[in-house]
Order: sequence, then structure tokens, then C-alpha cells
Amino acid sequence: MNTPESLAEGVLKGNIRALARSISAVENASSIALPLMKLIFPHTGRAKVIGLTGSPGAGKSSLTDKLAQVYRTRGHRVGIIAVDPSSPFSGGAILGDRIRMQNLATDPGIFIRSMATRGNLGGLARATADAVLLFDAAGYETIIVETVGVGQDEVDIVKTADVTIVVLVPGMGDDVQSIKAGIMEIGDVFVINKADRDGADRTQMELESLLSLAMRHDFWQSPIVRTVATRNEGLDELVEAIEQYAEFTATNPTVRHSRQERVADQKLLELVRDRALAHIRNTIVDEGEWQEWTKRIAAREQDPYSVAETILKRIFG
Amino acid sequence: MNTPESLAEGVLKGNIRALARSISAVENASSIALPLMKLIFPHTGRAKVIGLTGSPGAGKSSLTDKLAQVYRTRGHRVGIIAVDPSSPFSGGAILGDRIRMQNLATDPGIFIRSMATRGNLGGLARATADAVLLFDAAGYETIIVETVGVGQDEVDIVKTADVTIVVLVPGMGDDVQSIKAGIMEIGDVFVINKADRDGADRTQMELESLLSLAMRHDFWQSPIVRTVATRNEGLDELVEAIEQYAEFTATNPTVRHSRQERVADQKLLELVRDRALAHIRNTIVDEGEWQEWTKRIAAREQDPYSVAETILKRIFG
Repeated sequence: MNTPESLAEGVLKGNIRALARSISAVENASSIALPLMKLIFPHTGRAKVIGLTGSPGAGKSSLTDKLAQVYRTRGHRVGIIAVDPSSPFSGGAILGDRIRMQNLATDPGIFIRSMATRGNLGGLARATADAVLLFDAAGYETIIVETVGVGQDEVDIVKTADVTIVVLVPGMGDDVQSIKAGIMEIGDVFVINKADRDGADRTQMELESLLSLAMRHDFWQSPIVRTVATRNEGLDELVEAIEQYAEFTATNPTVRHSRQERVADQKLLELVRDRALAHIRNTIVDEGEWQEWTKRIAAREQDPYSVAETILKRIFG
Repeated sequence: MNTPESLAEGVLKGNIRALARSISAVENASSIALPLMKLIFPHTGRAKVIGLTGSPGAGKSSLTDKLAQVYRTRGHRVGIIAVDPSSPFSGGAILGDRIRMQNLATDPGIFIRSMATRGNLGGLARATADAVLLFDAAGYETIIVETVGVGQDEVDIVKTADVTIVVLVPGMGDDVQSIKAGIMEIGDVFVINKADRDGADRTQMELESLLSLAMRHDFWQSPIVRTVATRNEGLDELVEAIEQYAEFTATNPTVRHSRQERVADQKLLELVRDRALAHIRNTIVDEGEWQEWTKRIAAREQDPYSVAETILKRIFG
């Protein structure tokens, strides 16, 4: 039997099994997750967290793996969290893990974990943030959070990292402006991967002109790094750019604090929101009653706004 | 002054100004949004809602515009909702609108509206669903909801449509499996756009083999349509495929009901969750107190789990 205490002890010792079980506990929102996270939280805050997002097809996984290997040669233990919408079709997250394991599994200093979406309103952002804290408490010096999608959820997840990397690829086509719109503002470092392809110069020019229009609150000028991850090109430059941003925030306490407070604010909002909803579903509204309402709304016999009001009145009066 | 009653009256008459103001009201979660939506809801359920998502660079906007034009020639009024993460960089949504307006603005039977993400936990899905209902009540026979991103949020948004179209493009590169994983299961119709490009056959083969592995609950076999939207190729076939799925659900009440109940369930969950959080932020926790907590969490003097518990205890005891 795993108790929160025994799991926390294992995680703090860097035990892989305890870490994996703890992540499953937060992912499934099991009853031990909350007391476990309370025990873990005071032991966090030491890891460098790198968020990595960008266009599909940009080679984010390869880049993550190569980046992990660079940090390994510097003596870090590296945790990789791949945030991946799961699918009954392809086995999604699990399949991806298995392929990558073949390359990295021989190294006990690297631990890869996928976080998959579960159902509606699944609290993926919250679970991913908790997984980061668990890796941190387990002594991983570098944690890379990599996303598969490029939606708002994924943006919210990676922007809570200490450094956020946005990966582009040459020749994205006509939607390139709109892709950039959503993720441009969160990039502390930009990567043009597959930079040996046609169109790298044009992508760089477009990127530079977009960046020149922007003025960040912290006055940081996000560098652009070209890589060919599969051939290990540009990796050192990328790590150098990451380190520079880390140093920038370390020497600017205002920047660091406002970033940390933003992360704390989002964390608290998500916790309160998800737990309030769970409490309402579990104890305020009977399951049969909920289904009856759902049926009536679907049939347009009742409007959902009035039903929501009825439910909230039960709680808040 | 706009009252909920005057706005509702305007929307039901198909007044464009009233519609635009009503959408702004739900987007900004203004105080008139809720009474307005209660008045509107009984007059909804007539429109055909088409959700359109897919890879960035797949030409979703062009396809949406061409599809809108086809429905126009059939006498429908068409509403287009572009769900788009906003950005201080490029003006995001607004810029996109302006470009598209040049092509479609001359036709009063088409109304385009962007929905942009606002802040953390902004309730984009809820606001988009309300905008669909407003278009519906205003008499638009066809409503196309198009997403820019491919994250979980966007998937949740488009899968509430009556028909969901997933757009792919030839030669997506090595991440193609993982992109597909998240969105494959929601496609009622698949489109390979830019089908004149190299690799269209391969993309079709990959797609067919993925689809052959799947068994949908409703036993529908999702067709694959090839288009070149910019040259108007394949548009009629696409509309035909959409109509076939609509007919399939019309003749299978179980399928239709379970889809409508899933939509109602998600709608109610989102409403309860967002409004509970808003109520907590507005009346249960003082703003200064919240900020103080956020600071202490950021400094790791307090853990967010205990703070959330404290807040929830105030409400639920």
C-alpha cells in the first residue's frame, strides 16, 4: 500500500517507482494526490524548468531528446514531460513513449513521462504542473515540458516554465501568421529547427520582423537559434541561449518574482476551480439529477443558464 | 442603453448590430450576458453547426470561406466564428478579420466573428458556444466554427458541432502521427486540402490505415475528401460528405441524442465551473487576500493545496 508519506519519502530519495506512482496519482486525481503534494511542495523550486512548444511537424520531440542529452553531459538528471492528447486510435502518448524509450532508455539519468488528456475539463494543466513539482522534488535538475498541440491549453502549460522555447520550422505556409500570433508572445527563445530546409532565411526574416514590433514587459530580446536537431547542429547555441535567459531572470529579481507570482496565481486558480467543480459534482448534485438536467437541456426543455444558477444558489445561497 | 430584452429582440430579428453586441457581452462575461442567453436559448437548435479544425498551415481559413460561399449559393445565411488565440504582437484575431473581410464583406449574408482568448481560464469554450447559440437565434442556417490552434481547448470546442471536419495537408513531416492522435477521433469528415501537393497519396494512405484501425461508437465511417480550396476544387464533394453525415445523424436518433446530451453536459459543466470560480473570486476571497496568498505561494512559504482547501472550506464547510 502506498501512503502519501511513503510515496513522498520515495520521491524525495529520487526513487523512480515512487515518482511514477506519484505522477499517476496526480494524473488520476486520486485521494492521496493532495496530501502527497502538500508534503512535496516545500522541497521544490530547485529545478530549471524548460517549456517547449511550437508548430506540429517542427521536430519538437527530437529537439527535446537532444537537449536532454546535452544536459546529461553536464551532469544533470533530466525529466521529460510530454503533454499529449491521448487517443483511442493510436494509443497516443503510450506509443510515443515506447519509440522514444528505445533511444533514451539505457540512460537512468533521463526519465520520460507522458501526460494525456482525460475526458472533459480534465485538469491537464494542473496535473502537468504537479508532475513538474514531483520531478523537482525527486532531484531532477532539468525538467523539459514538451507539448504536442499548439492550443491555448498547451500555451498555458509551457508558459509556466522558467524558460519557454518556441520551435518553428521553415515553410509553414499561409497560416504561419496566425500560428505565430498565439505563441509568439510566450517565447523567451525561438528555434528554427530543420534549418537546412528551404525557406529558413525567410522564416528567420519574418520572425525578426514580428519580434521587432514587440516590446516585452521585461525588455528581454528573445534570441533566434537555428538547429538541425537530428544532426546535433545548433544544440550548444540553444543551451547557451537558455542559460542567458536564466541569468537574465536571476539578475532581475522583479522579472523573476512577477513570473513566479503569475505561476502561483494560475496554480491557485486551477486548484480552486477544479476542486470546486469536483465537490459540486460529488456532493452538491446527485448524478441522476445531473443527467436529468442534461437530458432536459439537450431537448431544449430547460436552459443551461438557469440550471447553473439553481446549482450555484444551493452553494452560495 | 442595451437591455437583455432589447438585445434579444434585435438578435431574434436578425439585426447584425444586436448580434455583434450580444457576442461581445458573452465574450466579456458582462452582467447582461446571462439574462440575454436565457431569453435566446429557447429560440435555438435550428442551425447546422460545422466545426473545422486541423493542422496549422492546412488552409483552414480559405476552406471555411469557400465552404461559406457554397452554402450562400444554396440560400443560407452563414455565420463564421474563428476561434483564435489573441496576441498583443500582431493584433491576432482583429488582423485576421480585416484581411478576410476584404473578400467576404460585400455579402451581407455572411457574418464573420473572431473569438479570442482572454487571460487565464478565460472561458473561451463557453463564450464560443454562446456565440453559436446567438448566431442560431439570429436565423443563420449554417454556422462554421473554425479554430486556429490544435490543442485540447480547440478540440473541445469543435467537437460540440453537429459535424466536425478535420483538415490535413500533405507532407506534415515526422510529427504527423502525434497530431493525428489528438484530433483523429473527432473527425466526422476528413479533408486533405492542398491536395495538388506532393504527398497527397501518402497522406491519404496513412489516414485510411489509421481510420481502418478505429471503430466509432456510432459505426459511422468518416469519408476522406480531397480539396484545393484556393482553386475551388472538391468543395461540392465536401458539402456532399457533410450532408451525408447530417442525414446519418438525422436518421439515427440514438446517435443524435447522445451527441446533444454530450454537448449539454459539457455546457453545464463549463457554466457551473466558470461561474463558481467567478463567484469565489468576487465575493468569497478578497482581492488583497488572494494576492497575499499568491505571493506566499510564489515564495514557497505556503503551499497552494492548503490555500485551496482553506478557500473551499469557507464555501462548503
